[in-house]
Amino acid sequence: MKKINSRSLDNSPESTQILQTATKLFNGSKKVYIKGSNEDIKVPMRKVLQTSSVSSEGKHPNPPIYFYDTSGPYSDPEVSIDIESGLPKQRNAWLKLRKSSSPNSTQMSLAKQGVVTEEMEYIAIRENQCREKNERLRKGTYHKGESFGANLPDIITPEFVRDEVASGRAVIPANINHPEIEPMIIGRNFKIKVNANIGNSALSSSIHDEVEKLTWATRWGADTVMDLSTGKNIHETREWIVRNSPVPIGTVPIYQALEKVNGVAEDLNWDVFKETLIEQAEQGVDYFTIHAGVLLRYVPMTAERVTGIVSRGGSILAKWCLAHHKENFLYTHFEEICKIMREYDVTFSLGDGLRPGSVADANDEAQFSELKTLGELTQIAWNHDVQTMIEGPGHVPMQLIKENMDLQLEECSEAPFYTLGPLTTDIAPGYDHITSAIGAAMIGWYGCAMLCYVTPKEHLGLPNKEDVKEGLMAYRIAAHAGDLAKGLPSAQIRDNALSDARFDFRWEDQFNLGLDPERAKSYHDETLPKDSAKVAHFCSMCGPKFCSMKISQDVREYAKKEIEAQEKEMQKKAKEFREAGGKIYNEV
Amino acid sequence: MKKINSRSLDNSPESTQILQTATKLFNGSKKVYIKGSNEDIKVPMRKVLQTSSVSSEGKHPNPPIYFYDTSGPYSDPEVSIDIESGLPKQRNAWLKLRKSSSPNSTQMSLAKQGVVTEEMEYIAIRENQCREKNERLRKGTYHKGESFGANLPDIITPEFVRDEVASGRAVIPANINHPEIEPMIIGRNFKIKVNANIGNSALSSSIHDEVEKLTWATRWGADTVMDLSTGKNIHETREWIVRNSPVPIGTVPIYQALEKVNGVAEDLNWDVFKETLIEQAEQGVDYFTIHAGVLLRYVPMTAERVTGIVSRGGSILAKWCLAHHKENFLYTHFEEICKIMREYDVTFSLGDGLRPGSVADANDEAQFSELKTLGELTQIAWNHDVQTMIEGPGHVPMQLIKENMDLQLEECSEAPFYTLGPLTTDIAPGYDHITSAIGAAMIGWYGCAMLCYVTPKEHLGLPNKEDVKEGLMAYRIAAHAGDLAKGLPSAQIRDNALSDARFDFRWEDQFNLGLDPERAKSYHDETLPKDSAKVAHFCSMCGPKFCSMKISQDVREYAKKEIEAQEKEMQKKAKEFREAGGKIYNEV
Repeated sequence: MKKINSRSLDNSPESTQILQTATKLFNGSKKVYIKGSNEDIKVPMRKVLQTSSVSSEGKHPNPPIYFYDTSGPYSDPEVSIDIESGLPKQRNAWLKLRKSSSPNSTQMSLAKQGVVTEEMEYIAIRENQCREKNERLRKGTYHKGESFGANLPDIITPEFVRDEVASGRAVIPANINHPEIEPMIIGRNFKIKVNANIGNSALSSSIHDEVEKLTWATRWGADTVMDLSTGKNIHETREWIVRNSPVPIGTVPIYQALEKVNGVAEDLNWDVFKETLIEQAEQGVDYFTIHAGVLLRYVPMTAERVTGIVSRGGSILAKWCLAHHKENFLYTHFEEICKIMREYDVTFSLGDGLRPGSVADANDEAQFSELKTLGELTQIAWNHDVQTMIEGPGHVPMQLIKENMDLQLEECSEAPFYTLGPLTTDIAPGYDHITSAIGAAMIGWYGCAMLCYVTPKEHLGLPNKEDVKEGLMAYRIAAHAGDLAKGLPSAQIRDNALSDARFDFRWEDQFNLGLDPERAKSYHDETLPKDSAKVAHFCSMCGPKFCSMKISQDVREYAKKEIEAQEKEMQKKAKEFREAGGKIYNEV
Repeated sequence: MKKINSRSLDNSPESTQILQTATKLFNGSKKVYIKGSNEDIKVPMRKVLQTSSVSSEGKHPNPPIYFYDTSGPYSDPEVSIDIESGLPKQRNAWLKLRKSSSPNSTQMSLAKQGVVTEEMEYIAIRENQCREKNERLRKGTYHKGESFGANLPDIITPEFVRDEVASGRAVIPANINHPEIEPMIIGRNFKIKVNANIGNSALSSSIHDEVEKLTWATRWGADTVMDLSTGKNIHETREWIVRNSPVPIGTVPIYQALEKVNGVAEDLNWDVFKETLIEQAEQGVDYFTIHAGVLLRYVPMTAERVTGIVSRGGSILAKWCLAHHKENFLYTHFEEICKIMREYDVTFSLGDGLRPGSVADANDEAQFSELKTLGELTQIAWNHDVQTMIEGPGHVPMQLIKENMDLQLEECSEAPFYTLGPLTTDIAPGYDHITSAIGAAMIGWYGCAMLCYVTPKEHLGLPNKEDVKEGLMAYRIAAHAGDLAKGLPSAQIRDNALSDARFDFRWEDQFNLGLDPERAKSYHDETLPKDSAKVAHFCSMCGPKFCSMKISQDVREYAKKEIEAQEKEMQKKAKEFREAGGKIYNEV
């Protein structure tokens, strides 16, 4: 690891604490790997073991369930973790081989050439989320055209991944200098992804806190993490984060560029920005938010808004444009930016600097003008084989959400959409993880590829560890609800397994199959703490007499006996009928 | 108050605590009343006072904002509260007058006769949620046909309320023996309402806890409360709840009937049920959940479900039907039930005993068969002038929600729909207030009239006070998001006021206009506890240099100066032009 300064996280009490929370296994779970076509491709999954069902007919076993796992090597007891050294650099072998055979290539350029990269195969296995499907994939015992919905194949193949990347419908954020990541994909024909923002501000937070938030965020299901640090030690903080992250890292380079010019937006220029881009690309940042769509002529469109410009990057660039009476330098230098991005295979996240910050401002001229420009920039990026996704709002009332998605697909040629929420009302500071989970679930259903989480602290302050978790839980719910609604194959396996466990009174299985086994168990234990309650056929909600699940099981058994009795009766009648000579009418 | 036994809540430390939490005013708020056409009609509102805006041009005041207020007399410092005596019986005068002029009449029968009751006028004022509109209503300075959407008038008039009740599209749950309530309406052309369930089970909770939960629930915005007690002291608990409730109370009478036959479902019969209905109607319960649609022939349709029958009432009746090989006695005695309901003006909440308990079971034959039967029963209830609403699911993935709403409107002739969630995924025990707030917001937008909240303890245990609040916050968000999306006039006033305050850095106003001023303030104070931070033009999320709102205000001022400079320049040019003789082309 490139040492930034003499400060080390190693062996400190803080590092020890980070490792303790990051490496704890979930109850009932095992870390497993599914192998690909070569030894290097080892795709992690969380395997949840289930207990057996017990009925009057005896015991019968329940199968293990496999979960998509973002927690990285931390949750593997076999891997020793050293925060100072960073995570194992598992992509290095692939990258080395690739580099020797050609100049630096992006996943998109390789895909366009028809190449299936190791990352693509890894992703195919990961997205299938189902051992049986991967078995069929390995053996080739599936129909190539096997399809679930209009666009969703039942089995994700490496070739399907390649085609989605080639068309620009999906991106694989994977900087060639970030070999530590476990490859993942963002696109609407795959599982909906969730991003968590971390990062200190000038007022708060230390590097330790941020590394802990990173490992904590991936433990609770963050598919990517954005480091939005703006304070001191911005380079060093990022270095620790990148080296210890199993998921792609995104940044907003303009924040650091602004630090370099002492916070004076007017003093920004292309040179300082370019230097910052290269510095961060060198470190291994996987995607950059670039607010190249905030054009000078769009700025006055925000003057009559209720909440003006609420994007930090957007407002910095708006100020720059007005101060210089010039076009946004990110727009005028966009081709040069593409060349840098291509060099490292950094993915664009074209920023929505003019997103609405209140429901009153949703879907207005400023917002949709910028979106159109982002669509034009997408074409330029694709010409350079640079992978591209598009950021979206913000605050949008429910009835206006679909228009956002439809227009984005149209204007940006189906490049993946990556939205912040949207928040469906402005009236709930302290609960914006909920106001926004509503909008996030809906836009996920409509086709949004990645959801940027919102924590309960939104609008009020910097999230702490607990807030990060609350935000992630709300967004894992939104993403999964979206996956169910869009008909993602295999998504419902987990719901069905959990509901089976619930109906079967397998309490431990119900906890372990849920998003947060610890909380589920502790809530249950508040009123029924004893171990015996974990096999009880009721809970404290209704008590033993009133448990509908129990009565319903009785009903089922009753119905079964009824049917058996009817069958017996019918057999008896049939026997009588046969014995009476088998004629339909007894002759008089 | 009818004394049930010698036990009294008065003067106990528990009663004192209840009153302390129930009577605390929200920061920055005043309790006010808007008067109707006579002195008796005094409609409560919460008036939130705002601070002034301060800019370079000086101070300018911001208007107070009025909120719909469910907290009852508890939040009025002028009213002395005595839990033993119960709340003031404000509807008694209206009821007395009405009784002397006719036999007992329901709001529906009066509406059909063209009568505008005091309750209807009260509700009209309450629903307008806007002082200015009520001013115009009082003075008659509005156009009768003033209309906002297809069905939503901009100003709600007492006559509009009457017509909605007469048509069955809305209900006013108001038992003639519950004079303590502040009248409210449930219908899709009004503000979406939220119900909170409370009630002890055999395993937990005391009467004190339940009365405290009641006052706590109405403080946080419960429009109605259901008492689902199933344990001991069921009659007494209910008595305390009804006497101290400013909102309509609902119950599921089959729970108490089952207690009377020692929990043996097979021993239930019409006589014990009828006795229970009358007992509860006498006490003043405002609406009854009656599972009259669980027909014998529908029960086998649930046998192959993932989670069978999950409604307690539904499973009790299914068991009864199977045990006796008879049709559900609530169905066969439905006309007799109507007669009792009519006598007290108790509203039907026709229970969905066969609702899905997992996403796998959503929208199946069992569920929709029962819905059809509920539609037939609605017609019978309406023939008796009994107000009726319909209960709905449950667990439903997003893409299947709209079908529920559309079919309910069709099958049940637009009677108000009242749904539990729906939960959009099964995988998040511990977070089902969020899984269900997503579905609730959506079905509210589609036309659902009341949302039954779900707390974080759903599926795991009995909610405590904190859970009740969390559930209500999630559901106030869902209901408000639904109101915004369906275009309810005035709904956006609060969003806009809060966003204005946010953009203006009026931190205290931002907190006070939100759903939970205390939490918003405490989250903000975690990183910036000082009073000076309440006037700071930034927060700890981004720090002073990066605040987009601040930069955006700068942009706005900049743009303003630009426009002024341009105007000045134009005036100068105009002057030059005039001085040059005013000709368009200078002659060569």
